[in-house]
Amino acid sequence: MEVPRSLAAGNFACDLFLNQVLITSKTHIMVKLSIGIDIGGTNTAIGVVDHEGKVLIEDSLPTPPKKYNPAADKQVSDDLLNGFISDISKIVKSLIAKIDLKHEIVGIGIGAPNANYNKGTIEDAPNLPFIGKVPFCELLSEEFPDMPNIFITNDANAAALGEKIYGGARDMDNFMMFTLGTGVGSGLYYKGNVVYGVDGFAGECGHNTIIADGRLCGCGGRGHLEAYCSAPGMKRTAFELLLRENAEDSLLTAYSYKEMTAKHIYDAAVQGDKIALEVFKLTGDYFGMALATTIHHFSPEAIFLFGGPVAAGELIIKPIKDGLKKHTMPIFLKRDIPVLVSELDMGHAAILGASALVWNV
Amino acid sequence: MEVPRSLAAGNFACDLFLNQVLITSKTHIMVKLSIGIDIGGTNTAIGVVDHEGKVLIEDSLPTPPKKYNPAADKQVSDDLLNGFISDISKIVKSLIAKIDLKHEIVGIGIGAPNANYNKGTIEDAPNLPFIGKVPFCELLSEEFPDMPNIFITNDANAAALGEKIYGGARDMDNFMMFTLGTGVGSGLYYKGNVVYGVDGFAGECGHNTIIADGRLCGCGGRGHLEAYCSAPGMKRTAFELLLRENAEDSLLTAYSYKEMTAKHIYDAAVQGDKIALEVFKLTGDYFGMALATTIHHFSPEAIFLFGGPVAAGELIIKPIKDGLKKHTMPIFLKRDIPVLVSELDMGHAAILGASALVWNV
Repeated sequence: MEVPRSLAAGNFACDLFLNQVLITSKTHIMVKLSIGIDIGGTNTAIGVVDHEGKVLIEDSLPTPPKKYNPAADKQVSDDLLNGFISDISKIVKSLIAKIDLKHEIVGIGIGAPNANYNKGTIEDAPNLPFIGKVPFCELLSEEFPDMPNIFITNDANAAALGEKIYGGARDMDNFMMFTLGTGVGSGLYYKGNVVYGVDGFAGECGHNTIIADGRLCGCGGRGHLEAYCSAPGMKRTAFELLLRENAEDSLLTAYSYKEMTAKHIYDAAVQGDKIALEVFKLTGDYFGMALATTIHHFSPEAIFLFGGPVAAGELIIKPIKDGLKKHTMPIFLKRDIPVLVSELDMGHAAILGASALVWNV
Repeated sequence: MEVPRSLAAGNFACDLFLNQVLITSKTHIMVKLSIGIDIGGTNTAIGVVDHEGKVLIEDSLPTPPKKYNPAADKQVSDDLLNGFISDISKIVKSLIAKIDLKHEIVGIGIGAPNANYNKGTIEDAPNLPFIGKVPFCELLSEEFPDMPNIFITNDANAAALGEKIYGGARDMDNFMMFTLGTGVGSGLYYKGNVVYGVDGFAGECGHNTIIADGRLCGCGGRGHLEAYCSAPGMKRTAFELLLRENAEDSLLTAYSYKEMTAKHIYDAAVQGDKIALEVFKLTGDYFGMALATTIHHFSPEAIFLFGGPVAAGELIIKPIKDGLKKHTMPIFLKRDIPVLVSELDMGHAAILGASALVWNV
């Protein structure tokens, strides 16, 4: 089954329900659907999504691994890329073929590291094996020549859009999304769209310096938010506190640096472990510095948080709110600045975010 | 002479030259003019400005001093405020009366600390004697009942708008303005207007934390950009370096903490004084952290700098550019991010910025 837009041709169609559902002259309901593709360092998830944020069907494939020195072999990169595009296309077509609703696919949205929204490219992504500037949207459109829209951006920008289209930000026009996980991502929504910046890369607040000359970040810089408030960053804080306090009685002393995860810290905190509780407190304080900076820039309506560490609930949210209050200029605190947990289903958020790119046209 | 809009009533007027000049049926040229009012801690400057940014006539008055405990006497605050509004109004009317061009005053723009653009208020400004939330635009409109537009914002937001209307940002739709002086202000221009935020206060990046738990800032917080990169911040850096290096041979050892100004540091740097040169280098590095944060948020087309320290030229601009490169994520450095000196005339910038609020309607 090819791109179904052609199916609708010739029908008398009128748009109902905010342009999400088409009713043909034969009164068969035709649903508009979006494809969301999330390209991660190890796995690529693909799903078909309706305008309410329901994932109708999904599949995944491994992302080609970065196992060689990419600068050494452009041919390997090209082959991996072509194979990847071909595999993605096959899955997308197979998913579409399985949908038994009358439907129209309105576009494909892609979330990927170092994605350039303006140009439709992925550029020198550190965790992907593709060399240089990859015209990802263009390559995919060769497989789907009739697809109306194909967009790409980084996963946190996509998450912000997901929150706007399907989640807690439906009625907002000025909000910030932070995604916490292996890294820290950010996406800023303002005046009707995500802010992509003049070069298409905007939304990388995980790499804001919060501690001058501090911890080494994955990007090579020092002292970045990501090195403190990602899940691995929380582990680093835990070890910093263990050695600073020489806390032999902490539950966290049981884990090697390799073993320890944010979940261990959470479990220890729930049991009242002082070091673990202090990790959450410090993480909130670090995060508060970054949030204050965002607030000073554009005083958003709300801040949304998404990702594994956020599952700790008030254990992390309260320290973040305290940190926000500590580091934000008092004039902004005349109002409550809501720090909200994303309403997106965590298991599907990456696909949802990517698919949201299509609805925001 | 009252608000001249009424003069135009009944005339056949057509807008020419981007709506800046009216030609009446009698072909006498009628110029549209804006009033700019800059309220500083000690002085308030008022000017009449044409659309090209020419200040036709100007005057000033002392800002009422904050010499008492404002919380103690609301009546004193009200009296000072009413007197101030009345004095401003007299000067504005006298300036307008002196203009011998046929003109139409299209509005009054005001720059003031803690100004709320959305509400037209000044709220708890630390360096003004007015208690609480002052409805400044409303009070002024009682003196000018026919004035079409009266707006207020902080001086750095006004400067950003001045750069857009009269200066180097005329063709830009996404840029950041930083003002350096006694403090550090910021104004972000995006999608056709300054970003005021949901509460009307946005644009206070001088209070972003760049050194966690660092120097005390005038606002009561710690480690803020303003405590490092304002003119007094540079003095603090100079003394920090003098004691760190124990640099008995530095020209800067001649000044007391009270005496030393950014100009002394500049003069010493020009003579090759190592400590003074290091002050500029460190200031650039500190500033680079703040600029990187802005870039990660918005990836603006350019960054503009305005104010006394910027007069040092390459001595300050080069370290700032180096700092920007050091702290910005590499993906954004694929393009040159221009760090530009404001094109506004420094002597009139505050009036120009305030007056620009009126043209951006």
